[in-house]
Amino acid sequence: MTNSQELHLKRETFCRGCWEQMRMPIAIRGPLSYIYKPFGIHKSRMHPNLCTICESMFTRINKRKQIEVETTILFADLRGYTHLSQQMDVSSMNRLLHRFYDACSEAVWEKDGIVNKFIGDAVLAIFNFPLVRENHSLKAVEAAMLLQKQTQHIKADIGIEDDHEIGIGIGIHTGICNIGEVGNSYKDFTAIGNVVNLASRLQGAARSGEILMTEEVYRQIENEFPALNHQAFPLKGIDHDVSGFILDEKTYSTYHRPLAEKRE
Amino acid sequence: MTNSQELHLKRETFCRGCWEQMRMPIAIRGPLSYIYKPFGIHKSRMHPNLCTICESMFTRINKRKQIEVETTILFADLRGYTHLSQQMDVSSMNRLLHRFYDACSEAVWEKDGIVNKFIGDAVLAIFNFPLVRENHSLKAVEAAMLLQKQTQHIKADIGIEDDHEIGIGIGIHTGICNIGEVGNSYKDFTAIGNVVNLASRLQGAARSGEILMTEEVYRQIENEFPALNHQAFPLKGIDHDVSGFILDEKTYSTYHRPLAEKRE
Repeated sequence: MTNSQELHLKRETFCRGCWEQMRMPIAIRGPLSYIYKPFGIHKSRMHPNLCTICESMFTRINKRKQIEVETTILFADLRGYTHLSQQMDVSSMNRLLHRFYDACSEAVWEKDGIVNKFIGDAVLAIFNFPLVRENHSLKAVEAAMLLQKQTQHIKADIGIEDDHEIGIGIGIHTGICNIGEVGNSYKDFTAIGNVVNLASRLQGAARSGEILMTEEVYRQIENEFPALNHQAFPLKGIDHDVSGFILDEKTYSTYHRPLAEKRE
Repeated sequence: MTNSQELHLKRETFCRGCWEQMRMPIAIRGPLSYIYKPFGIHKSRMHPNLCTICESMFTRINKRKQIEVETTILFADLRGYTHLSQQMDVSSMNRLLHRFYDACSEAVWEKDGIVNKFIGDAVLAIFNFPLVRENHSLKAVEAAMLLQKQTQHIKADIGIEDDHEIGIGIGIHTGICNIGEVGNSYKDFTAIGNVVNLASRLQGAARSGEILMTEEVYRQIENEFPALNHQAFPLKGIDHDVSGFILDEKTYSTYHRPLAEKRE
């Protein structure tokens, strides 16, 4: 397992999304990138190797504000952050949050997902858009395992030595989402719909260190983890109990594939 | 009371923040704005009359990643969104969310606050940064009242005729926050700290149509609403009960000042 210091995605000169989907070389780094900046085309914050065209592809090309896409949605949060923030000093909390944001971004990017947004102590990541990957559910689960492993020693990484419990809970769901811009005054690029809500609620039910996924996700990755335990969860705002498959530390620590590419 | 159609902030040519604080005319609209775009200086998404310099003022000028500022934080959300999204069709849900995002942005901007981010069915707004306003607590409460009034007829506005209950809950707290960028890989501009967490938790306790504020906020606006009811709220992750002052529809509908400037 690579440790946190080694996990930095290679930064590319041209946008990978525009290249994969349209064979267009759009410079996002280096001198050529200055040609595009006046037109508002620059590196996306959501993925360092994508550009702003990719984010809003559907608006310019499809002339629609939103598109329906098959995606996998991942939510993760720092357990007990509000409680911790009452006990820890501001500078430790800042270091903790910095470290969490970085670990999330690098894990998601490594698996070709985008970081849509951070929400205080939580993150919303999208897989299969705009980088299309057939095995996007597995990619999301791998990103989740990578994130759990990268933050295993988060306390030591940020130099906290006391006995505060710090861990991460993750929820994953897959299905058709609406992706695009919401709002006319403030245009917000995001994913909306039932899939997003359910992933978020499931994350709320995950215990520290756990990855909870729906049956729809589990069906896609069953080969990797046969016979995962599951449990029915009553989730707020959802009428029926939701079956959640539990990937715990004991199980994911035996995963046989490398989670991150080797870096020099 | 102005209705939703009339509430559109006047879009200015020069950034108001740079002008107020540094007397610098930075063009964010019109031909002059193309001078700045290659340098990544453009209109901020968080407020239509501010620029990206204002967002990151502290980084470039103070050479610090975060600053401590006295702010007022407002959280608002659509009550029962997850539940509704199971019953309503996708296009109605989209219209509802669009309308909510627009109503939030226009109400916050009208009162010189910034929309930091939308999180599904919720919004995080910051007052007193970067536009400094002595009465920022009152500004936030006025924005909250404006938002409640603007969304009073949200069902009719988006053409839903059935009997789903749709309303908005709001929480407001004030104090010293850390504002700035979190993360090295994905740089996220946001406010963090206890003030933000408490405002968010308080919003969770607000009932549909209500504005809940802490004692710190209430002390600043007491003159406008003498003798507001309050109640002790047990909030998740917070050790002591929090005293919340309740501004309900009956009370705020009698507010004597105009909430929005008259538009032609």
